[in-house]
Amino acid sequence: MTLILGIDPGSRKTGFGIINQVGGKTEYVTSGVIRVHKEPNMPARLDLIFSSLVGIITEYGPHCMAIEEIFMGRGPDSALKLGQARGVAMVAGTQSKLEIFEYAARKVKQAVVGNGNADKDQVAYMVQSILKLPGLPQEDAADALAVALCHNYVHTGLINIAGATRTRRGRIV
Amino acid sequence: MTLILGIDPGSRKTGFGIINQVGGKTEYVTSGVIRVHKEPNMPARLDLIFSSLVGIITEYGPHCMAIEEIFMGRGPDSALKLGQARGVAMVAGTQSKLEIFEYAARKVKQAVVGNGNADKDQVAYMVQSILKLPGLPQEDAADALAVALCHNYVHTGLINIAGATRTRRGRIV
Repeated sequence: MTLILGIDPGSRKTGFGIINQVGGKTEYVTSGVIRVHKEPNMPARLDLIFSSLVGIITEYGPHCMAIEEIFMGRGPDSALKLGQARGVAMVAGTQSKLEIFEYAARKVKQAVVGNGNADKDQVAYMVQSILKLPGLPQEDAADALAVALCHNYVHTGLINIAGATRTRRGRIV
Repeated sequence: MTLILGIDPGSRKTGFGIINQVGGKTEYVTSGVIRVHKEPNMPARLDLIFSSLVGIITEYGPHCMAIEEIFMGRGPDSALKLGQARGVAMVAGTQSKLEIFEYAARKVKQAVVGNGNADKDQVAYMVQSILKLPGLPQEDAADALAVALCHNYVHTGLINIAGATRTRRGRIV
């Protein structure tokens, strides 16, 4: 079995989702959203993202982390905030000795929906369908599960997406 | 005595500097630059920033961290990378139970040089002068020492800079 932790980072909400690839089947394990907007300041928000992710990794023991590369259509201030959350999420993984895999959002959509320009509703719908969930997952959790599914497809050789970078303890493998 | 860790974060080089305020005197303790550009990818770079800072905090036991708020004159891609490094640096502090203080670059220059528009050479020169260093510190280390000095001035009441945010374990104090 291979447990994959997908992450959709954000400075207010960070989505996470874990799937399990076992015996040719892909199973849903857990997902949710780390909400930090009530924390009084940015260091406290980032600390909560880090601690929550370390807690999730400790509880579920995923084998790797998949995270979206970020398309920066917004301004530098948003990029800085998003970068802070994303950096903290990645280090929660590296400090837990997880391999980190990065995928462009377009490639995640291509893998899960079959269309690199799919909208968020389509992604959530396909995530629900593939993982046989009883309802639509929350938006950030759906995006996190989607990047985990994308990694799973690449990892199991179902599709081959150019450009994913695989690292292990700081080395490309 | 109060040991202050100043940080100048960057995705390739992160400057750090520790000063000690003891009995009305400000002493230089240590400073340096964490260089991560040889790491093969961004997760490995961020991991090295985090681990190095946690190591420095463990070794020297600073009482708080001072870090520059970032003025974003550059594009969103630079902002994202800088944000990642900055987020990781702050969480190295919060996870070590340090209070984090943020200061705008302009205010650091105002505090150390007396001119919010001072250039980097002036900052390095004043840092050398104030801390009686035998030579000019490296640029990133000088900026880190400058933000530590700025915090020290605010903390000891020598100057009062509006806008510094003080936090302790996620609470404004």
